[in-house]
Amino acid sequence: MDYAGRRARALQALAGPDLPALLVTHPLHVRYLTGFTGEGFLLLAETPVLCTDRRFEVEAREQAAGCQVSAPEMSHVQSLIAAVQEAALPRVGFEPDSLTWAQHTRVAEALPEAELVAVPRVIEALRLCKEPEEIALIAQAAALADRALEELLPALAPGRTEKQLAWQFTQSLLEAGAEGVSFAPIVAGGPHSALPHAALTDRPLQNGDIVVLDLGAQVGGYCSDMTRTVVVGDPPGEFAERYGAVRRAQEAGIAALAAGRSGAKVDRAAREVLEEAGLGEQFSHGLGHGVGLEVHEGPTLSRLSTATLEAGNVVTVEPGIYLAGWGGIRIEDLFVIEETGARQLTAAPKL
Amino acid sequence: MDYAGRRARALQALAGPDLPALLVTHPLHVRYLTGFTGEGFLLLAETPVLCTDRRFEVEAREQAAGCQVSAPEMSHVQSLIAAVQEAALPRVGFEPDSLTWAQHTRVAEALPEAELVAVPRVIEALRLCKEPEEIALIAQAAALADRALEELLPALAPGRTEKQLAWQFTQSLLEAGAEGVSFAPIVAGGPHSALPHAALTDRPLQNGDIVVLDLGAQVGGYCSDMTRTVVVGDPPGEFAERYGAVRRAQEAGIAALAAGRSGAKVDRAAREVLEEAGLGEQFSHGLGHGVGLEVHEGPTLSRLSTATLEAGNVVTVEPGIYLAGWGGIRIEDLFVIEETGARQLTAAPKL
Repeated sequence: MDYAGRRARALQALAGPDLPALLVTHPLHVRYLTGFTGEGFLLLAETPVLCTDRRFEVEAREQAAGCQVSAPEMSHVQSLIAAVQEAALPRVGFEPDSLTWAQHTRVAEALPEAELVAVPRVIEALRLCKEPEEIALIAQAAALADRALEELLPALAPGRTEKQLAWQFTQSLLEAGAEGVSFAPIVAGGPHSALPHAALTDRPLQNGDIVVLDLGAQVGGYCSDMTRTVVVGDPPGEFAERYGAVRRAQEAGIAALAAGRSGAKVDRAAREVLEEAGLGEQFSHGLGHGVGLEVHEGPTLSRLSTATLEAGNVVTVEPGIYLAGWGGIRIEDLFVIEETGARQLTAAPKL
Repeated sequence: MDYAGRRARALQALAGPDLPALLVTHPLHVRYLTGFTGEGFLLLAETPVLCTDRRFEVEAREQAAGCQVSAPEMSHVQSLIAAVQEAALPRVGFEPDSLTWAQHTRVAEALPEAELVAVPRVIEALRLCKEPEEIALIAQAAALADRALEELLPALAPGRTEKQLAWQFTQSLLEAGAEGVSFAPIVAGGPHSALPHAALTDRPLQNGDIVVLDLGAQVGGYCSDMTRTVVVGDPPGEFAERYGAVRRAQEAGIAALAAGRSGAKVDRAAREVLEEAGLGEQFSHGLGHGVGLEVHEGPTLSRLSTATLEAGNVVTVEPGIYLAGWGGIRIEDLFVIEETGARQLTAAPKL
């Protein structure tokens, strides 16, 4: 990864508000800008300073090429303050979405001469468009999850519990070389399928259960995300019609993906299909979200989204319906937006 | 767990600064005060309001007995603001260590009439002294990790990689019924043992390697934490002497554990032993930390600690030395502080 290039682009973005430096306090942003995987903060400036502690000092020096490493016996915030003082910066930006109120107060008190400026979403904005190396890692993660799901499907039989199945998925992933799951697997059987974000239970699958499988892998820090809905034995009444509607909604969403399209418009395309099927109320969440170092990041595809898609965005398209007492259906795939259209990264078969 | 009792104690703590309510934004604090395991914030007040979204609405109603549940289509912060407006609170506390600067700004702008008061570490203070049910879960987690380590030890042979061994530990834990690991396992072999917080690699163990195993389990949301140092084959020169010094340092630390004792004094007791052995400089971190819902929480045992131990605290005692080019040694056990002395929760054998 070209960490120095990312730092240069971030500094360029800070030139707008005339800021020579940024206090980088979001853990993933420290990794994104330096490659360092331990705990610490970064003073992003002409000479970047990685503020960590002695537990991570050796890794910091190995991983964060081009950065000064500071690992004194003090908190990371104190060491960040010392780095600002050392550089005699008159003006410094901070990340308002990760710096806590208490940390901000500590910095402001320790640096009465420096002007602290909230600059939201500078690094988040850079992360929106993935570099080819990042897309390759996400695609690798998606492929590993595809394979682990394929191995899981034959095990979806009456008597197997949600926890056992989730565990089997995790095991397949790790054996295939993933770093791990990108989030706690969702295996939601029967009544639990009606919960959009069900926690795992010891409930054994039963004949006639709908099962929602929401699964992802992590490779090189990057995530994948995918959902499939299957049925154990004979489906409940109206399953085919409802599944068909969700499937058509997903297809409409996918067809709407394109650079320049607004996130709200893509959501609308899918939502209309479910509304026409009388299932608009049951589609109780947004259509999708970005995926990268985080399994949920920008851009968002939802009614309230203000995002416009760009080439290099990686997003999910995942319409779902939830009917208490009956069950739920969600289908989710992962896409990279390209200049023309979108390329699908998940490939597991669907009903 | 007696969630209503915890909320009552928290409200009592807020009576001091004359606050009728607290914006609870730390995810573990929401769980600690309500039992809710999904995503959301809590307005802790006479009538508590759990602010989540439709993905978690069903679980919220099931899990958070005694709380109003609010799950509108808006961000959790917006819904928290709405709850404060609804209750017409003139004054409300917030958690400065979890509320971000941006969230604070949003709340302050939306509630110009309300006085927002930073009240640090209210819930953290309650969490310091564990209830019997919490200690039982931590002890369960520790026992599962003991057993999984026992199963791992015969596998520590030349050729096995750090990742394979960590994975085997995780597998044993999950098969034994743990929710998972309480942190990414550390299996640091040979030169990596000299890193206090080594990341897993594909390096195969070799004859003569020191191996530091820092492992923990999670049960019911509660963590355990333990470290053992072993050797594959013949130990390197000076291993016995150095191991003996770390072991004696740990014993001195353990002997110093008592309600009423300061965290700095317990650290001192162990540190003096290593200083006398000429290894003071190599003991580059604090002696220990609290363990509970988080694997690192208060109280801290270190030179800079301002904590005083109380009955019900659960803490690690983990002296370690790190010598680049030679290797490292750390030994860690987990204790609950009692009125007289301390009770050990980890039981895996040591060299």
